[in-house]
Amino acid sequence: LRIALVGVGLIGGSIGLAARQRLGASVAGYDADAEALTAGTGRGAIDLSCASVADAVTDAQAAFVAVPVGVLPGAVESVLMAAPADCVVTDVGSTKRAIVAAVDDPRFVGGHPLAGAETAGVQHARADLFDGATWYLTPSPATSGILYERLHRLLRGIGASPTAIEADTHDTILATVSHLPHVLANVLVAQAAQTLAAGEERLPATGPSFRDATRVAGAPSPIWTDIYISNRDTLAARIDETIARLADVRDALRSADSARVTVWNDAAAADRRRLLEAELAGGPLFELRASVPNRPGVVARMALELGRAGVNITDMALYPAPDMSEGVVALWIAGEEHSRRAEQLVSELGFPVARA
Amino acid sequence: LRIALVGVGLIGGSIGLAARQRLGASVAGYDADAEALTAGTGRGAIDLSCASVADAVTDAQAAFVAVPVGVLPGAVESVLMAAPADCVVTDVGSTKRAIVAAVDDPRFVGGHPLAGAETAGVQHARADLFDGATWYLTPSPATSGILYERLHRLLRGIGASPTAIEADTHDTILATVSHLPHVLANVLVAQAAQTLAAGEERLPATGPSFRDATRVAGAPSPIWTDIYISNRDTLAARIDETIARLADVRDALRSADSARVTVWNDAAAADRRRLLEAELAGGPLFELRASVPNRPGVVARMALELGRAGVNITDMALYPAPDMSEGVVALWIAGEEHSRRAEQLVSELGFPVARA
Repeated sequence: LRIALVGVGLIGGSIGLAARQRLGASVAGYDADAEALTAGTGRGAIDLSCASVADAVTDAQAAFVAVPVGVLPGAVESVLMAAPADCVVTDVGSTKRAIVAAVDDPRFVGGHPLAGAETAGVQHARADLFDGATWYLTPSPATSGILYERLHRLLRGIGASPTAIEADTHDTILATVSHLPHVLANVLVAQAAQTLAAGEERLPATGPSFRDATRVAGAPSPIWTDIYISNRDTLAARIDETIARLADVRDALRSADSARVTVWNDAAAADRRRLLEAELAGGPLFELRASVPNRPGVVARMALELGRAGVNITDMALYPAPDMSEGVVALWIAGEEHSRRAEQLVSELGFPVARA
Repeated sequence: LRIALVGVGLIGGSIGLAARQRLGASVAGYDADAEALTAGTGRGAIDLSCASVADAVTDAQAAFVAVPVGVLPGAVESVLMAAPADCVVTDVGSTKRAIVAAVDDPRFVGGHPLAGAETAGVQHARADLFDGATWYLTPSPATSGILYERLHRLLRGIGASPTAIEADTHDTILATVSHLPHVLANVLVAQAAQTLAAGEERLPATGPSFRDATRVAGAPSPIWTDIYISNRDTLAARIDETIARLADVRDALRSADSARVTVWNDAAAADRRRLLEAELAGGPLFELRASVPNRPGVVARMALELGRAGVNITDMALYPAPDMSEGVVALWIAGEEHSRRAEQLVSELGFPVARA
């Protein structure tokens, strides 16, 4: 297995470490920053330090573009130009709509691991960074099924849980669970700094709720300005919702309406419980086998359908027929109910499916 | 040393454990909930289980009222009625303006430890809960200096860092660093639940920023509704500020103004850095000795003046003259600069002061 890394930072470096240690892969790396490349070699994240993108992707079966969102389109384009015809190319950017819209190539699958949020250099890279982490994949109708399955398996191999999702949905969810929390953290520290400064140089004694709520405040602008801007429409809409909800609470407070405050707070407790329960959902693994034509987009469509229904594909394998005209896709799904739902959905897509 | 606890939950129980283990105190406890009382005895938080407030405060040198904010005024009133004339009485409520305004007694000092935010029962009580934690004290002009100093010393003895602060300032700061983060956490989980529900029953894969930002969401309404309501004016004003700041960011996003987003994000990073640095401030201890008249309010005024200037009193001791007409207050202040500032402030209050 030969992997190419374009961008050797925390995420790229951790992919390299995990792929080398767990999959015995050979990892070629390129970074525009020569120091990062040296550090990546020293850290053991790459075993081949390359002077160009083209060198890095030579003979690669998978290429990861792990650069900031702002320079992502150009980097993906140059990787696709240089990469072999059977190399799957993916990225790790925090927003997906823009990059997916910009690329039309059967080798490309947008990706986003929910790990390593604290942006840091390759010196913090760890082989276990992705253990148990959701890794969103946003295949397009053009995406090759064989390459999608290879990427899915590779990500499982480095510890992650790949989940297919539409790029739009991804950006909406991330606006809510990541970009908006970052915005609120920024606003909170700004307000606290102002409040505390107002009383001369008072020593602020902040509690754990404040520390938790502001841990991500002021994340590095070279990364985050581009994330905010690339997801600006969705994020602005989420901020409008936040403002409306805050105005509601403020009104309840101003009218000293204890009953309304309690209803609001109890609802938040219930929401939090539901979110936690959903995250802990799972169960024993069931295997399904479906026969599918070997056409671009088929596996991607199946993965997206299941993802849309909230069914997570714990593992998958593709067994092509000798003439490559069709193949069997094996899917492993956690939980009796989810596996039944998956069986039904695959069947509704028109593919013969059975429990193994 | 005999201590009374009225309310044996996480906070009360932890005070009891620490006072027994570290100060060799005898701890009498009362709780309206008989089960809490039994649990508190089993946990070793109290060594005398009492059937009434009056029984608990008999012969006590210090009484802690550790009950929810909503029932605080009544509980403090009944403790003051039953407590000995030389017993310091304090509370641990999260808001201070209302209770301080309701009580006018030289024995009372409002208090609020910044620890144990996760409301839980006495079974989670720990002797080290307050180690290093700021413990706000809100003495009034009526507060006895001798009793204030006793409470300060007692709190140091159980590991906390007492800091005097005006009740108004306390509630403004807490609105910013605690109540507002709780409100935002509630709003975030509500938005996330709505977003995720919109896409059928999709499994939400939330990142670390979301988990951190929402850890305190839906805190128990029996406690928190009263906190929100008792601090409603200040909190509503903070929410209005948040709304204004959010509207600014949204406008910058809608106009795709990268430069403005960067300036805003960099400012948040600087604010966060300043808040962290302020929290880490300190240095070697310096001792100051001031001669003060033995009148109610003098020590409280001194503590408040220093607190207002951001000077933390690490430790204090009061040495009354034999005729009790005046006394020497020893103050230990961390850091050369802060100790100089303290010396100046005490001198400006009209009290002779010298470095020991």
